[in-house]
Amino acid sequence: MRALRFDRGELSLVSDQPEPTLRQGEALVRPTLVGVCDTDLQLLQGYMGFAGVPGHELVGVVVDGPKEWFGKRVVADINFACGACPTCATQDPHHCPNRTVMGILGAGGAFAERLAVPVRNLLAVPDGVSDEDAVFVEPLAAAYEILEQVDVRASDRVLVLGDGKLGLLCAQVLATTGARVTVWGHHRAKLDRVAHLPLEGLTEPNWTGRPFDLVVEATGTGGGLTTAMAAVRPRGAIVLKSTVAADHQLSLAPIVIDELRVLGSRCGPFPRALAALQAGEVDVRCLVDAIFRFDLVEAAFQRAAQRGVLKVVVRFTPLRLPSPPPGA
Amino acid sequence: MRALRFDRGELSLVSDQPEPTLRQGEALVRPTLVGVCDTDLQLLQGYMGFAGVPGHELVGVVVDGPKEWFGKRVVADINFACGACPTCATQDPHHCPNRTVMGILGAGGAFAERLAVPVRNLLAVPDGVSDEDAVFVEPLAAAYEILEQVDVRASDRVLVLGDGKLGLLCAQVLATTGARVTVWGHHRAKLDRVAHLPLEGLTEPNWTGRPFDLVVEATGTGGGLTTAMAAVRPRGAIVLKSTVAADHQLSLAPIVIDELRVLGSRCGPFPRALAALQAGEVDVRCLVDAIFRFDLVEAAFQRAAQRGVLKVVVRFTPLRLPSPPPGA
Repeated sequence: MRALRFDRGELSLVSDQPEPTLRQGEALVRPTLVGVCDTDLQLLQGYMGFAGVPGHELVGVVVDGPKEWFGKRVVADINFACGACPTCATQDPHHCPNRTVMGILGAGGAFAERLAVPVRNLLAVPDGVSDEDAVFVEPLAAAYEILEQVDVRASDRVLVLGDGKLGLLCAQVLATTGARVTVWGHHRAKLDRVAHLPLEGLTEPNWTGRPFDLVVEATGTGGGLTTAMAAVRPRGAIVLKSTVAADHQLSLAPIVIDELRVLGSRCGPFPRALAALQAGEVDVRCLVDAIFRFDLVEAAFQRAAQRGVLKVVVRFTPLRLPSPPPGA
Repeated sequence: MRALRFDRGELSLVSDQPEPTLRQGEALVRPTLVGVCDTDLQLLQGYMGFAGVPGHELVGVVVDGPKEWFGKRVVADINFACGACPTCATQDPHHCPNRTVMGILGAGGAFAERLAVPVRNLLAVPDGVSDEDAVFVEPLAAAYEILEQVDVRASDRVLVLGDGKLGLLCAQVLATTGARVTVWGHHRAKLDRVAHLPLEGLTEPNWTGRPFDLVVEATGTGGGLTTAMAAVRPRGAIVLKSTVAADHQLSLAPIVIDELRVLGSRCGPFPRALAALQAGEVDVRCLVDAIFRFDLVEAAFQRAAQRGVLKVVVRFTPLRLPSPPPGA
């Protein structure tokens, strides 16, 4: 089958990728749409020592496996937990030490014509949610993880650092609480994409003092924490969303002196993200820059890596062009 | 009056320190015992750009001010808040942006024959609590701050990094919850001081995996956070107690990947610490290395700065020597 493969520093669309073999409890999924994530771009730069098929922002259709799933439109939680260890039993399968992760760690990714997914990771996509929305469930769930970790009140002032895909999703999710949300980024064009939403977009820090109860660091850079510490009030919370492989230099003293809470935040609750899409609580389509045919997946990655680009999505089924008006 | 003064890099006991002048709402306190804290030692090395009279671990007697406080034995919360700003009104006076801090920031410290303290910062020491115990209220309150920030359960495994004064106080406080507490430090002799308490003292990391639900970083060094990240379980908590002025190098990725909570922790609840001393829940006296006369306060600081030394206390009233046996 065809797949996008990353190996020895080379990313290429190959046609000799072996078909996945289904194990007990797995379903075979044929992707419909797959999003390119910044994590994918980092994997290609050496993060996790990755080799294989990337892709973890998936909506697809079950084409083999348990009968009750046949033909269903699905999204899939990307953390494939073992289900047998103490962490799975008593804590959070997302942190199973034996887990593989779709397209990231030890499990084939979604930039392939078919992939195997544990059935317990599947969620059926309700009829009211389009493929174009559902492909955002994984990053949107990661944004909703913040609300699992921090009690955000309508009276809170919230700052999101970073106007990338994840930052703009986080900002939208945080705004659903009624809190006053500011997004700070370098790209006016990106901020303009969410101008229709109740968010304040800033390219310059025009606040005074340290007014924010919560700062979400989604810059994708190591320096974001230092910026966050200078903007959050004493006893406030900072949520770290950026996974930055490199070490960097900083002082931790402000965390202690101001008794800050610094919360790492990774994957989140898929059902909550699906429900939000179904209820129309967030607008993910405003973040889409381009939809590429799977044949052109290499070009899709090039596009996604360009400065100022938001979400790039890859479509496995033929691109649907608008029908010409009748009589044309 | 006499006071220990730090100025232009020199620490000296002077006799020409001006008497404090009492302002509205202040009391004049004559110290009985004052502890030397690691923060004092850091101030002498340039932390906070400090100059003046250090000292903030105080038990003393009120000698002037409001009549109802006359002659009372007292301890004093070291954060002198303004009482008028929004932080004081709605959040935590410990974080008042206009605060001064006894012996640390803009307020005279306790290594002086008299000092002025806002009356609202005073707590009377109950009869059942000796001066020798009460002088520990400030650092003990800082240890109790952890229990204000983290819900520690009896089933939890807790690691304290650092066998200094603060580490050993934190360990004791955490053990009062019923949690299994391990202290890791470099000095067997320090760990032996708490050998009679329900704590496990280790000089080598002999645990396997990352078994700790909570890790308290009290090493006084910047590298402690990295050690803590390698010992705490996914979704566990790290409490930072060390204020380290210098920048240092680290990777924040484990915080995000493992969704850790990193909590800065500074000053704590004085009433809770006083109550714990009254109830005999912790043993602070086992941490005392030496009690020096105030005349020898410079020597006390030299002693406190030596490797392997725990608490050094300075006594302003004559040292009480054991009476000779009758007939000797």
